[in-house]
Amino acid sequence: MNAIIISVGTELTSGQTVDTNSAWLSSKLAEIGIPVLLHVTAPDDVEPLSRQIETACAQADLVLVTGGLGPTADDLTREALAQVMGVELQIDPALAEQVRAFFARLNRPMPEANLVQAMLPVGSRPLENTCGTAPGIHTRIGSTKVFVMPGVPREMQIMYEQFVLPQLPRQDTGSVILNAVLYCFGAGESEIGQSIYDLMRRGRNPLVGTTAKQGIIGIRILARASTAIEARNLLEDEIKEIRHRLGPLVFGRDDETLAHAVASRMIANNKTLATAESCTGGLIAKTLTDIPGSSAFYSQGWITYANEAKIRLLNVPADLIESHGAVSRPVAAAMAVNARRLAETDYAISVTGIAGPAGGTPDKPVGLVYVGLAEPNHCEVTQLRLGNHLNREEIRWRTTCTVLNFLRLRLMTDR
Amino acid sequence: MNAIIISVGTELTSGQTVDTNSAWLSSKLAEIGIPVLLHVTAPDDVEPLSRQIETACAQADLVLVTGGLGPTADDLTREALAQVMGVELQIDPALAEQVRAFFARLNRPMPEANLVQAMLPVGSRPLENTCGTAPGIHTRIGSTKVFVMPGVPREMQIMYEQFVLPQLPRQDTGSVILNAVLYCFGAGESEIGQSIYDLMRRGRNPLVGTTAKQGIIGIRILARASTAIEARNLLEDEIKEIRHRLGPLVFGRDDETLAHAVASRMIANNKTLATAESCTGGLIAKTLTDIPGSSAFYSQGWITYANEAKIRLLNVPADLIESHGAVSRPVAAAMAVNARRLAETDYAISVTGIAGPAGGTPDKPVGLVYVGLAEPNHCEVTQLRLGNHLNREEIRWRTTCTVLNFLRLRLMTDR
Repeated sequence: MNAIIISVGTELTSGQTVDTNSAWLSSKLAEIGIPVLLHVTAPDDVEPLSRQIETACAQADLVLVTGGLGPTADDLTREALAQVMGVELQIDPALAEQVRAFFARLNRPMPEANLVQAMLPVGSRPLENTCGTAPGIHTRIGSTKVFVMPGVPREMQIMYEQFVLPQLPRQDTGSVILNAVLYCFGAGESEIGQSIYDLMRRGRNPLVGTTAKQGIIGIRILARASTAIEARNLLEDEIKEIRHRLGPLVFGRDDETLAHAVASRMIANNKTLATAESCTGGLIAKTLTDIPGSSAFYSQGWITYANEAKIRLLNVPADLIESHGAVSRPVAAAMAVNARRLAETDYAISVTGIAGPAGGTPDKPVGLVYVGLAEPNHCEVTQLRLGNHLNREEIRWRTTCTVLNFLRLRLMTDR
Repeated sequence: MNAIIISVGTELTSGQTVDTNSAWLSSKLAEIGIPVLLHVTAPDDVEPLSRQIETACAQADLVLVTGGLGPTADDLTREALAQVMGVELQIDPALAEQVRAFFARLNRPMPEANLVQAMLPVGSRPLENTCGTAPGIHTRIGSTKVFVMPGVPREMQIMYEQFVLPQLPRQDTGSVILNAVLYCFGAGESEIGQSIYDLMRRGRNPLVGTTAKQGIIGIRILARASTAIEARNLLEDEIKEIRHRLGPLVFGRDDETLAHAVASRMIANNKTLATAESCTGGLIAKTLTDIPGSSAFYSQGWITYANEAKIRLLNVPADLIESHGAVSRPVAAAMAVNARRLAETDYAISVTGIAGPAGGTPDKPVGLVYVGLAEPNHCEVTQLRLGNHLNREEIRWRTTCTVLNFLRLRLMTDR
């Protein structure tokens, strides 16, 4: 079995919204061994949309469609599907009741427009939407299974798990594909590629490929075998080999972020952390507290965006700022050391820099950042120069990754 | 002229990475009036990729391809393109020099693998990459213009602006399409849809559609006319009408976020702000400091994740936490009032809540959040209940949007 994923919406083809549904569905299909041949995105327009549904059904055994099921006049996936099936749309009384019940639960009057969501192509079946008003649709076109789900990611995801997945075969007969990603920080894509060049040969099994995103290098591994156990062994052996070659460059696997790597080591080592941020403005703290359970090691932080705040909240000596500037090695050190002392934690990290686009000088250009890492009796400050083509968002993010990576490396040797 | 955008990468079709390039390119093409018919995502595999390039060239006047130009063995877009063109790949000596020079500038040895990036299909022309090692490719297949760019978003974007855009016609003859999005917060999609139902009729010009994402409703407006001036007038009149109907629900347009709306009003009203965050853990501060120039109104903030931190950093009375719990109306009030006093700002916002997944009780479930807004002689605390189907990330984000929206509405009446 193989699949094509179609996402629907003029907001997608016009670039106003990024489609995340296709990637999510692909990763879910990969988990059960169904390879995805293509993603296609079509506008809210019956003709091209029905043409894409038709073409996809001719090429794939499974077609998943997301979007265009909303209550407004630009939601046309129902119509396009009916056209491909050569049937009419018709109100489903049970669905109409569900839509009404949804609004009743929220204690809100139902806009009449929402009734269109109770319409189905004749001969298709509804998929219940347990957290929104748009039911999904299940049908068969030729020998192809078709599932249509809402475009709102959360509604789509819950519908997939509850009502689509149970109707999909697990590819236990024939070939099983398992995949994983290892993430690295601290070296470029081609440098990493050279270390594992022999593993990246075309046609090899496992198939290994690299991607780069904001300084983080992902190494994708796809293992194919006739049984799940064989595929799992193939995958895990390959991961062991890559980890062996790259050593501490590898910080995580699959959904694991740098923050996860820091969090798990912090908790394992029973250490605590405070943050003192200037140009990252809360991004580091936000990234750490994205992790459920981060309160086990993270208790507090300061955002000292103004010089005055560095002086008052973190007791950075005013004359230090005056003589060296706020973006300087001694100020980064004072921020980290004082944050650690005030918070009574094992570690503290600090950041002071120029994220731009304004505020740079020839001496201290945009992208100049100092990051501090304080621990008992020691504070290490590192200078970063991130100005080369990076924008504000990228400078803030690279700084965050760099700090978290320093901390991760430090924790690897800490007991 | 119309376009099809092809993104290349098994990391995309397998769902390991979300494609953002197609959306970015679509919005750029919309700016110059070139409608996008489809997005297609193909894996790193010569056969399906060349088939997609061929099909796209048969349907569209312009085909933009991103990805698969890296230095590693899984980068096959060059090969697929050569196959569609029916030609060989050949080293371009000038390109080889550029790749070498790139590494020389970084003071790093060039991995031999990178030389593959100097190969081009015979008869095509290179596009310079000013911030990476993968040059792009420009060619013509039949009457279709084809541009191939790297998959790394920043490299692709700079290459598009510098070397692709100048070669594209502006659609000044015939029909001009202009588009805009208005963003709303504080009402559901169907409620907003009802207020503008007549404007959303199919086939109408301007074409109006809605989308919902994380509580933010986007209203897309596409205006089509034979001249740019007519299209602009059509678009602006429609925007005026929608703004009139929806009033303060509309917070921004196009790239404007809630944080932008807050920032511009803060600066216009000459006010200052401090933040005191518990469960959002720095997300509100991060969202505000995403905005360049935010230092004009934002000077400092606290992340008081632990109770102890609320007491020590923000002087929240310990007995207040003991008698009401950290997630309570009085604690939210104390955090906001004290943050404002300590920071000496006009406003302060506070958040305390349970973002989950753990930590909820029947009395205080996951998603219970209190947000405070302090100003001189007044503090307003609001209770949010966000537990219904929302996950940790969504609870943190909805809380952030809600707080920023309160502040925006407050600033609209503040002088």
